[in-house]
Amino acid sequence: MGIGIDLGGTAIKGGIVDQLGVIQEERMLRTQSQLGYAQVLDDLVLLIKELQQLSPAETAVGIGIPGILSGDGTTVVSCPNLNWQNRALKQDLERLLTLEVLLVNDATAACIAEAAFGSTRGRSSSVMLTLGTGVGGGVIINDRVISGAHGVASEIGHMIMAENFYNCNCGKNGCLETFASATALIRYCRKQLAEGVESDLKAAENFDARRIFEAAKAGDSLALAAVNRLARYLGWAIANISDLIDPEIFTIGGGLSGAGEFLLERVKAETKSRLTYPATAMPEIVLATFRNEAGMIGAANLCHFI
Amino acid sequence: MGIGIDLGGTAIKGGIVDQLGVIQEERMLRTQSQLGYAQVLDDLVLLIKELQQLSPAETAVGIGIPGILSGDGTTVVSCPNLNWQNRALKQDLERLLTLEVLLVNDATAACIAEAAFGSTRGRSSSVMLTLGTGVGGGVIINDRVISGAHGVASEIGHMIMAENFYNCNCGKNGCLETFASATALIRYCRKQLAEGVESDLKAAENFDARRIFEAAKAGDSLALAAVNRLARYLGWAIANISDLIDPEIFTIGGGLSGAGEFLLERVKAETKSRLTYPATAMPEIVLATFRNEAGMIGAANLCHFI
Repeated sequence: MGIGIDLGGTAIKGGIVDQLGVIQEERMLRTQSQLGYAQVLDDLVLLIKELQQLSPAETAVGIGIPGILSGDGTTVVSCPNLNWQNRALKQDLERLLTLEVLLVNDATAACIAEAAFGSTRGRSSSVMLTLGTGVGGGVIINDRVISGAHGVASEIGHMIMAENFYNCNCGKNGCLETFASATALIRYCRKQLAEGVESDLKAAENFDARRIFEAAKAGDSLALAAVNRLARYLGWAIANISDLIDPEIFTIGGGLSGAGEFLLERVKAETKSRLTYPATAMPEIVLATFRNEAGMIGAANLCHFI
Repeated sequence: MGIGIDLGGTAIKGGIVDQLGVIQEERMLRTQSQLGYAQVLDDLVLLIKELQQLSPAETAVGIGIPGILSGDGTTVVSCPNLNWQNRALKQDLERLLTLEVLLVNDATAACIAEAAFGSTRGRSSSVMLTLGTGVGGGVIINDRVISGAHGVASEIGHMIMAENFYNCNCGKNGCLETFASATALIRYCRKQLAEGVESDLKAAENFDARRIFEAAKAGDSLALAAVNRLARYLGWAIANISDLIDPEIFTIGGGLSGAGEFLLERVKAETKSRLTYPATAMPEIVLATFRNEAGMIGAANLCHFI
């Protein structure tokens, strides 16, 4: 059993996760980040204490954070969603709790959930890519999470691939997430439509990534080009990661992974065409098991991966 | 103490390396790869037995291989320099020796030498880039060598960066080593000269990379452009590697590292400009300590990094 917290910009979700990765109890609070750090801290303590009462044997709690942690995992260096900078969250919480507090990046938490109970279970090395509004990542090698010397490992979405027509939120140009996220898909299609490209998407007022995948599956040439472009950059990134750390398996999560085999088969082909040793060293590439519960499940199991 | 072998295309070098990383005894044989696998095997056994007599307490020997090993480190999957494919070298040698045989890629051996006694000593995570005819790499995380699920990790030279005007030896286009090796420098300068660009290099019949660096330091604009281009792609690769695994330190070895600070300052600037968190997560970037002895020293210390 373990207690896992998913601290998001909208909600703080906490769960008691059993040895099979099933959430036995779940509690949720609204994230009141507009009221400041002290309020969120109080709410976290409230939630954790409640879960602790339900499972008194626990000695630790894992918390997934939508931001950057320090290399030693004690401090939230930057968390734009909560408007936090350099917050000593581990120390601040441990002062108010009788549990050890372990912090982890939220995409890494999802990667742990997959490795412990999901699509990458039983593999000692795995890389997760979460394709949503942005592109998040998690890296596990030798059954340990790689958080990096400065806490910024697994920022896969910000690997620079090539020049792109718009800048990333991070300020750089060419980041993977400007090619391989839902945002990237939508912006690419909008730009092509504005340039006069014909497409069924023209009729849809505010199309989202799901609509683009539907159109692509129906044969719309713009939507198909957009999906193929995304798969090309994703396969390219996966091949480069393989040349560097050669993990056993990659798992693709986040909202876009709902496109299933249609996306997966393209990403596999693009990866293979860019690998140095495609015949002998093609990694497995699969779809993630968990969706919204990944953060809690992963955070609750963090202690087994550090 | 340890026995380390550097199996190269021209020579088999073996050394007894002490606890300070100093080679106490060294023996060398010509690599007779033209006589086939059995001959090289016999010569390896001869050399190792001789070293074993000099240091009878040894229980293992490490061998650096200029090729690709299987994920379990027992088999040489591919070694173009020796014309070997799928050779069960560990098993074949252990049948003929009373020592445990450990195999490692030669660039990874160099990375170990740096981590054990050289430029990255005391750091638990480091990445080495060797800039020579090609670009080799080594990756150490949590004091362990990362060889990968299929044995092809640290093939940093084959990460695809961008389209280039010539193909890599591996058959792909755009590999880092076509931008950041001695070969890349020379080919870029030759191409520019052929297109009519003015340069002091024109007078030099068969210029090498050292000559290009000399000309760049003297202010020759083509040579300077070539060096800056190399630094740009190297910095880009280092930034992408940092976003993925965020090592404490990078070390640059191989022949081109002889260019010293002139190269290093450029690579640092290019890395910084592409990092996602340059203010908080800039890795150290240094020059390697060892040259020709790196293979032996690293191979002799492999047992401490697996």
